[in-house]
Amino acid sequence: MINETDRQETALSELIKRVGEPDRAAMDAAKKRQAMLAKPPGSLGRLEELSVRLAGITGRVNNVFNEKHIIVFCADNGVVSEGVSSAPQSVTLAQTVNLARGKTGAAVLARRFGCKLRVCDVGVNADIDDPGVIPRKIAYGTQNIAETAAMTRLQAVRALLIGAELAGSSADAGAAVIGVGEMGIGNTTTSSAVLAVLTSSPVEDVTGRGGGLTDEAYAKKISVIKRAIDVNRPDPEDIVDVLAKVGGFDLAAMTGAFIGAAAARVPAVIDGFISAVAALCSVRLCPNVRHFLVPSHASYEIGFSKITDELGLKPFFDFGMRLGEGSGCPRSMMMIDAAAAVINDMATFEEANINDSYLDGIRETDAFTVRADRDDERTIK
Amino acid sequence: MINETDRQETALSELIKRVGEPDRAAMDAAKKRQAMLAKPPGSLGRLEELSVRLAGITGRVNNVFNEKHIIVFCADNGVVSEGVSSAPQSVTLAQTVNLARGKTGAAVLARRFGCKLRVCDVGVNADIDDPGVIPRKIAYGTQNIAETAAMTRLQAVRALLIGAELAGSSADAGAAVIGVGEMGIGNTTTSSAVLAVLTSSPVEDVTGRGGGLTDEAYAKKISVIKRAIDVNRPDPEDIVDVLAKVGGFDLAAMTGAFIGAAAARVPAVIDGFISAVAALCSVRLCPNVRHFLVPSHASYEIGFSKITDELGLKPFFDFGMRLGEGSGCPRSMMMIDAAAAVINDMATFEEANINDSYLDGIRETDAFTVRADRDDERTIK
Repeated sequence: MINETDRQETALSELIKRVGEPDRAAMDAAKKRQAMLAKPPGSLGRLEELSVRLAGITGRVNNVFNEKHIIVFCADNGVVSEGVSSAPQSVTLAQTVNLARGKTGAAVLARRFGCKLRVCDVGVNADIDDPGVIPRKIAYGTQNIAETAAMTRLQAVRALLIGAELAGSSADAGAAVIGVGEMGIGNTTTSSAVLAVLTSSPVEDVTGRGGGLTDEAYAKKISVIKRAIDVNRPDPEDIVDVLAKVGGFDLAAMTGAFIGAAAARVPAVIDGFISAVAALCSVRLCPNVRHFLVPSHASYEIGFSKITDELGLKPFFDFGMRLGEGSGCPRSMMMIDAAAAVINDMATFEEANINDSYLDGIRETDAFTVRADRDDERTIK
Repeated sequence: MINETDRQETALSELIKRVGEPDRAAMDAAKKRQAMLAKPPGSLGRLEELSVRLAGITGRVNNVFNEKHIIVFCADNGVVSEGVSSAPQSVTLAQTVNLARGKTGAAVLARRFGCKLRVCDVGVNADIDDPGVIPRKIAYGTQNIAETAAMTRLQAVRALLIGAELAGSSADAGAAVIGVGEMGIGNTTTSSAVLAVLTSSPVEDVTGRGGGLTDEAYAKKISVIKRAIDVNRPDPEDIVDVLAKVGGFDLAAMTGAFIGAAAARVPAVIDGFISAVAALCSVRLCPNVRHFLVPSHASYEIGFSKITDELGLKPFFDFGMRLGEGSGCPRSMMMIDAAAAVINDMATFEEANINDSYLDGIRETDAFTVRADRDDERTIK
């Protein structure tokens, strides 16, 4: 007889198997197209590189990313009882509701740039009955990782599958790009704990001040994370174990969302530190996810560069932000739009030669002969 | 009797006098508003800083930047006869026409992000009769700076005033933000020459490879710039003299556009290296212009950081691009939109407290009391 844990673990394995390789033929075709566009080779820099990666993800050279989703996973973390956060736990609930109402920073940015925000309660410590919040609560927050495991292994797998489910339903609804964000007081603590385990780093090297901590509270945060790792002894090779023991419902669901987006061959946009830790978990669980990830902004949290280095993803911009909530995703999606626009709409060298009746009407000055240069197709700036 | 040069110089002086200080009261009000928004203080990073600067520019805390203009000044440079460019001079004409037709990289990006592109011929070496190109030709390209002055002082002042005129007409047409770009084969050579003079830098420290030069051509470019400075001996204290002797019509017009935007109290967006050199010229001519400048992307050209350091403007993003044409402006304008959106639309702490009937319907769990935390207005994450 198969028990519930086995059934869910099997579903997770099957999800992971569905994540494919990038489409190399489409990437080669995109590179060829870029070489034909009327510009010095490489002069579009990372927009060229991004257009090639996007082709690998979708399997097409020309893409439009009109439908954009940002999924924000909201959950509470039992570790806040240790005093590791500058804000009280109730803020998770308040901002979950405010996200759904479109009043938080990320919600405002999402609206401004035409991105749909999907707010999911995966473990907020309060009952929420709001049409704007997708109900997937696993529990009323996690346990305190400084004392015991955050959740059971079954809960971690369920959270992963919930994340994948939401990414899948976004893709089914036509989302051409999916951003992954979070809201959960205490989740920089769990993220640093997970990152310390995954990278075998000293806790001090991967722990920042979250929403803003005093020196004393920061020292406490570090000692709490050390205690959490010591008490739980997560197995760095077993990502589900790490997420279950020192992670959170938000982190596990985000990890699943990255895998789900990749399985649907939709680019998945990383937000800040917490989102990046989840992205790292997703790649450790399923290395092919790497090809589907798109960065957004840099995080001020120390340890962030350890993640981007391993993932090989340099952030697009650095605004010194530390808001979370998926707030970096809308602007990154504008960069995706930009990359798509240039490969879709720029003139090729052939088209740029303007070898039509227009030029015949231009008076050519002595120092300047259009006709002669017009034959050299590859010299357009 | 007043001659033409005196008349134009007087007009330029009057323009410069019209550029005011930032509105400190509006900036203070914007700072106050930012402190009221439901987020950890400073967590929006440069978006906060930008919203405060924008308030100083417009005199209002709340702004909308729906109408966005990018003015691209197109001109030829006589110095190309020295072989300093990887593309032939005819490309200036071809891409001027392609810009007007919406087919170049910058045109595609402008269209994608709802920015109006205004293409101005200020000195292309061909007659252009195209409804999409604003005709302000001063001459059919400049003289070769390696041999003589690029233009007369009167021509430089006229180019400056043309730039200001176009910025002014954009502002009159409702542009809430103005980007300043260029198209002109050879203009990284003139830009490096101007920058070397303005910053008393060795030519090698401010000269890059432009659209893509071989080692040999690069060495030639440096020697040509040295010769240009040696032959012309521009006065570093007299910006008009520098622009006239070793600059170009595009550079001078762009300088004027920055001043004109500032005079109209409209934020002016810098594109890449050439645009940044013009921005530096504008600030040297009129220090108050500094307050009206907004960066966009980083340039790969060496010497760029000398400019941003002096102007105190860190680029928003680095895509390794070297296309010019104002191609960085549309994405920077999205950042301006983002800064405006958060200060306009985010909830304040008071609003974020969701102290309405909604919460009364929430079942409060034992570990969690909304009511108690709700009294602490300032602790919202």
